Amino acid sequence: MPHHSPLLKNRYGHHDIPEAAPWSPVIESLLAHRSVRAYRNAALPDGTLEVLLAAAQSAATSSNQQAWSVLVIDDPERRARLAALANNQAHIRTAPLLLVWLADLSRVKRQADLRDTELKATHYLDSLLTASIDAALAAQNAVAALESIGLGAVYIGALRNNLAEVIAELDLPPLVYPVFGLCIGQPDPDKPAAIKPRLPQSVVLHREKYLPRANEAEQISGYDRHIADFYRSQELPTPDWSSQAVERQSSVDVLHGRGRNAEVLRQQAFGLK
Amino acid sequence: MPHHSPLLKNRYGHHDIPEAAPWSPVIESLLAHRSVRAYRNAALPDGTLEVLLAAAQSAATSSNQQAWSVLVIDDPERRARLAALANNQAHIRTAPLLLVWLADLSRVKRQADLRDTELKATHYLDSLLTASIDAALAAQNAVAALESIGLGAVYIGALRNNLAEVIAELDLPPLVYPVFGLCIGQPDPDKPAAIKPRLPQSVVLHREKYLPRANEAEQISGYDRHIADFYRSQELPTPDWSSQAVERQSSVDVLHGRGRNAEVLRQQAFGLK
Repeated sequence: MPHHSPLLKNRYGHHDIPEAAPWSPVIESLLAHRSVRAYRNAALPDGTLEVLLAAAQSAATSSNQQAWSVLVIDDPERRARLAALANNQAHIRTAPLLLVWLADLSRVKRQADLRDTELKATHYLDSLLTASIDAALAAQNAVAALESIGLGAVYIGALRNNLAEVIAELDLPPLVYPVFGLCIGQPDPDKPAAIKPRLPQSVVLHREKYLPRANEAEQISGYDRHIADFYRSQELPTPDWSSQAVERQSSVDVLHGRGRNAEVLRQQAFGLK
Repeated sequence: MPHHSPLLKNRYGHHDIPEAAPWSPVIESLLAHRSVRAYRNAALPDGTLEVLLAAAQSAATSSNQQAWSVLVIDDPERRARLAALANNQAHIRTAPLLLVWLADLSRVKRQADLRDTELKATHYLDSLLTASIDAALAAQNAVAALESIGLGAVYIGALRNNLAEVIAELDLPPLVYPVFGLCIGQPDPDKPAAIKPRLPQSVVLHREKYLPRANEAEQISGYDRHIADFYRSQELPTPDWSSQAVERQSSVDVLHGRGRNAEVLRQQAFGLK
């Protein structure tokens, strides 16, 4: 009975899913997502990495190019250096498992070199997008898988804050870049994470053509109040959604160094034409 | 007992997951993914769209920006025009549900306009990446959800082949672009899709630093033989993986028009700096 699920209440502040809507344990698990930044100091079960990788590789990939790879980082010193480059997020140091998801066109480059063939599509922006999307689809499958076995995770987009330094730290060859990191572990029961409310479906969903609803501003104001209540309940100083989102896009400073990334990616042989 | 799962055999051609590896119905569902292009001519259950959207919105999103939207396309004439723009893929016309996943920074732009604030981060490539990744994470959750209730889907990256025309067809405002489409329906039992084999885990996984295995070429040759067998079993003329992947990146022609996308995205107000 999805319309009664407390997960929907947490996500939207109300239950607006039709009573007869389909439901499954998978949907239940997906809707229970929350970002987890505090972990028990416990190793993951044997085989966890292999199962997460199998889930990731089961995601769709553009033309079966599989234009991604993943790095496991265990070395505490490397972890500390990466944390320092990524906004000093403590969980980069402490997570039982740290993965770095890479957009990777170097694998096909090595195959092209074996054939004395030159790659040309890699000179174009769309190839960067395709590889980045491949990596994202794969990572999200890994997240769905790990949450289903009681683990928690948080994406680390801040690995792109000092992109050149992270690329050097990880010895990434041309045509490879870190899309994001992912910290994984058993959630610390003493520091439970909460389900974050999202925008109303009516704000995100369009039909036939893109036309913002006449009441979009009003709907967003309602969401702003809802999420402000949520942040207060979590004792977080975060402002409401619209203030935060505008702030996040209003200046180059808030990119935390990411304003240099087009140049860094060009140095990595992504043409961006 | 994951090491015996036929899903792993289908994905890798062998069982190489440790016996004690964790397992769940969610993982089982994720590993069973196959792209479905043939559907029963049957409407989806009431509430399907709302549940898929709830799953999509439950995915992580960078700084809670939720920089994506989704379009439902029902109009048969619009479907036909989109199909013509996207490599004439018949399922764009016939799928019971067609979603277009949009990277969307226009929502925050409208909020900024209400505050007389100028956005500056949108001038940078990283904002395009963040919004595209947000859309991909959301869509992949929708795919995981729909597969769990017996539906099938296929991504339509070809919606970027004629990007300017698709943007015009969908009336997309500045700071919005279609990342990909997604065709959804009940799989046609007369045209079952198969699980596609993927690269060996050892080729995709690195530790500490990026270093291709000494036997990478050999591993890929093995995979080439495996997937060539798969394509033959499906009566598909597709060449082996490495030939296809090199071909796919070797010329601008194979981008099918996507070589223009940086220019089109700039016209959509994505700065790409």
